[in-house]
Amino acid sequence: MEAALSPPHAGSYARKRRKIMQLLSQTVQGYVANSSMIRRMFEAGIELKKQYGPENVYDFSLGNPDLPAPREVVDGLRAFAATCDQPFAFGYTPNAGAPWAREALARWLSADQGVELSANDVLLSAGAASALNAVLKAIINPGEEVLTFAPYFVEYGFYVANHGGTLSTVPSKAETFAPDVQALEARMTEKTRAVLINSPHNPTGAIYTREELQELVALLERKTQEYNHPVWLISDEPYRFLAYDGAEVPSVLPLYPYAICVSSFSKNLSLPGERIGYAVLSPKLENREELMAALTITNRILGYVNAPIVGQHIMAAALGASVDVDIYTRRRNAMAEVLSEAGYEFNMPRGSFYFFPKAPGQDDKAFIEVLTKERVLGVPGSGFGCPGYFRLAFCVDESVIRRSLDGFAAARRKFA
Amino acid sequence: MEAALSPPHAGSYARKRRKIMQLLSQTVQGYVANSSMIRRMFEAGIELKKQYGPENVYDFSLGNPDLPAPREVVDGLRAFAATCDQPFAFGYTPNAGAPWAREALARWLSADQGVELSANDVLLSAGAASALNAVLKAIINPGEEVLTFAPYFVEYGFYVANHGGTLSTVPSKAETFAPDVQALEARMTEKTRAVLINSPHNPTGAIYTREELQELVALLERKTQEYNHPVWLISDEPYRFLAYDGAEVPSVLPLYPYAICVSSFSKNLSLPGERIGYAVLSPKLENREELMAALTITNRILGYVNAPIVGQHIMAAALGASVDVDIYTRRRNAMAEVLSEAGYEFNMPRGSFYFFPKAPGQDDKAFIEVLTKERVLGVPGSGFGCPGYFRLAFCVDESVIRRSLDGFAAARRKFA
Repeated sequence: MEAALSPPHAGSYARKRRKIMQLLSQTVQGYVANSSMIRRMFEAGIELKKQYGPENVYDFSLGNPDLPAPREVVDGLRAFAATCDQPFAFGYTPNAGAPWAREALARWLSADQGVELSANDVLLSAGAASALNAVLKAIINPGEEVLTFAPYFVEYGFYVANHGGTLSTVPSKAETFAPDVQALEARMTEKTRAVLINSPHNPTGAIYTREELQELVALLERKTQEYNHPVWLISDEPYRFLAYDGAEVPSVLPLYPYAICVSSFSKNLSLPGERIGYAVLSPKLENREELMAALTITNRILGYVNAPIVGQHIMAAALGASVDVDIYTRRRNAMAEVLSEAGYEFNMPRGSFYFFPKAPGQDDKAFIEVLTKERVLGVPGSGFGCPGYFRLAFCVDESVIRRSLDGFAAARRKFA
Repeated sequence: MEAALSPPHAGSYARKRRKIMQLLSQTVQGYVANSSMIRRMFEAGIELKKQYGPENVYDFSLGNPDLPAPREVVDGLRAFAATCDQPFAFGYTPNAGAPWAREALARWLSADQGVELSANDVLLSAGAASALNAVLKAIINPGEEVLTFAPYFVEYGFYVANHGGTLSTVPSKAETFAPDVQALEARMTEKTRAVLINSPHNPTGAIYTREELQELVALLERKTQEYNHPVWLISDEPYRFLAYDGAEVPSVLPLYPYAICVSSFSKNLSLPGERIGYAVLSPKLENREELMAALTITNRILGYVNAPIVGQHIMAAALGASVDVDIYTRRRNAMAEVLSEAGYEFNMPRGSFYFFPKAPGQDDKAFIEVLTKERVLGVPGSGFGCPGYFRLAFCVDESVIRRSLDGFAAARRKFA
C-alpha cells in the first residue's frame, strides 16, 4: 500500500499529496496541536530532573497522590488475590457495578452524604472522569450548555464537548473564589442544561459553604421552572475527604432533586491508577430509576462497560478508610509558610491539595517560566481559565516543600 | 425543591407539567426505550432459573468467559499484591499506559501479529471497547460514516454514534459470512472514513482468510487515493487466539498502513471485568506518532484516563498465556453434535465461541421465544442486524451443552 500510494519514482506530486492527507478528525487535530504546550512543560521538568537530580527539582505540577494506599486497600487486594483462581473471578459485572459493591457503596454514601440511599441510586464507574461523561451523555442534547465557575479543571471542557455540548464559564468571586450566583444567573439561558461545581475545589482549595449552595440551588429551582426542563447540578467531589480545620463540606444531594454527585477513590484511597469512582443520585428525585437506567446504558456504550472488577473489590473492602489527612494538613501549613516567607499573595486552601497564589508580575506563563528556571514546577492559571495565578499541588513530601523556599524566593525577587 | 415544583395543593397542572419534564437527552431517551426488550429477555432467564433451578436452564445467551484465569494471571496479581503497599503502587500511569507495560505488549504483539512494533505503536486501553472509542474519536468527523459487515456486534453502532458518525452495514456473503468486498465497494462514498471488521467473528464464528483481507485492502487503497483521505481499516480481534482446526488468523497490520487493530485480554486471559485491552498501529504508517499522540489524548478525554493499573500488571505478567483452547474445541464439537442431531442448519464456526444457526421458521424472535420455553437461552439474529438466525455462546460447561439436546430438539419440532 505504501508503495502504491507513493512509489519512489512518483515524484513531488505524490509526496505533496500524501502530506496533505490528514490522519485525524478536525477536532482532535486541534487538540493535538494545543497539547504541545503542556507536553513541553512536562518534558522540561523531566529534563531538569535529569540535569540536577530529581531531589533538586521541586515538582508541584501534578495532582498525583503520593501517599501509599491505606492498609485496608492492601488487605482487600490480597484477600481478592487469594481467591482469584475461581471461574468468573475477573468476570464482567453488571454495567452499573456488582450488586454487592453497589450495596456497600450506597451504605457508606448514605452516612457520608447524610441521605438515605439504596444500591440502585449509585453507579460504579471507572473513576470520576467516566462518571462525569456517563452523566453528561445521559442529560445533554447537542447544542446545549453546561456552566462552571472559573478557575476550573480544563478536562471539563472536553467532557462536555464529547457529547455535543459547550462548557461556558462564569468567574468565581474575586479573592475568595466563592461561587458568584448572580453572575451565573446573568449567564443562564434556555440552553443551560447543567451547572458543574467542584468543592473542595481544584485549583483554588475553596469549599462552598451551605449558604452558597442553598443560594445556588434556589436559582436552579427557579430556572428549572422557568425553562420547564431540569437544570442539573453536577457536583464533582474527589476532594470531599480533604477539608482542613474542621471545615464542613455540605452535600448537595439533600438540597435538590436534580443534584448528581460524582467522585472517585483516587485521592482518599490513593487509587488513581485503578480507575474506580461513582455517580450518585439525589433520593429527592422521583423517577430516578429512569436516570439510573440511562447511566447504566451510557456507562456501557461509552466503552467503560463496568468499573474494573479489582477496583470494585478493593473499594468494597476499604470503604471508610482514608490516607492520613494529617500529613496533608502539615504539608499545607508548610507550603503556606514557604509562600508567605517568599512574599506570595494567596488564599489559605480550606480543602483539596492545591494552592492558587497570585502570579507575581501578573503574567502567569512568564512567571512559571522564571519559576521553572529555579527548579520549582507549577502550572499557570491560564491552564484553569484564570490567568494571573498559578497552581501548586502539595502531594509531595513536606521536606520537598520546605526545601523549595529558596527557589520561590528567587523567582519572587525577579518580579519585585 | 420537590415541594416548590409540585406542592400537594397545586393540582393537575403542576402534576402534568412535571410529567412532561424530560430528564434525559433525546438520544439516550431512545436508547433507554429500546433497551427494554433485551432487559426483558435477561429477566426471563433469571425467572426461569429461579423456577426450574439454574442447572435446568441452558443459558447460551452471553459471551461471558467462564474458564478461570490462567495460572500466570493469578501469580501476576499475587506478585503485585505483595508490593502494593508502596507509594504510587496504584498511581496514575501515562495516558497510553505504563512504559514497561507498553514495552512488554509491543514485544508480544510483534510476534503475535508478525510485524516489528515498538512501545510507541501500542496504546493500553480499558478493554477493546475503550480502544475502539479512542480510535473512532481520533479519526471520525461528525457526519462521516463507518461501514461494517452484518451480522455485527451492535455496540459498534453506539461507539460510532458517540463521535457524531454513522455506522452503516453491508451484508456478509450468504452462507459463509465472508466479507462481501464488492457489496462494500458499492456502498462506499467520500463520507466513508473507516471499515470495521471483526475476525474471528462474533456472532458467526467466521475467520477472514488472507485472500479476503487482501481483496479488502486493495479496495481501501484505491478508495484512499480516490477520496484523498485515509479509509481506515479497524480490526477488532478479541477472539484472535480462538481458531479451530489450525485455522490461520492473518494480521491486517502488515497489509495496510491505515490498519489499526484493537483487542482485549477479556477472552484469552478470562479477564473481562478488569477492562484491559489495546490499540496497535501498523508499522507501515509513516507518521504514526501523530496518530498515537491523538489516541493518547482521546483515551484521556473520553474519561478512560489510563488502563486500570492492576490490569496492566496482570497483563504484563501473563502475556503469552491463555485459557485452555482445547476446552473450547470440545465444546464446539459438542454443540455441533447437539445442533446436528436436533436438526438445525449451521456453519461450523472456525473461530470465536459462537454458533449462528438458521432460525427454524425464519422468524428469529418467534423462534427464540419457543426455545426459551424449552429453557434454552440464545439471542435472536435481529440483535446483530441479521434476522432469520440466532446466536449461541458456548462459554458453558460441555455437560450443559449435551444436556440441552432435548430442548433444542423440542423447539425444532415445533417448526417442522
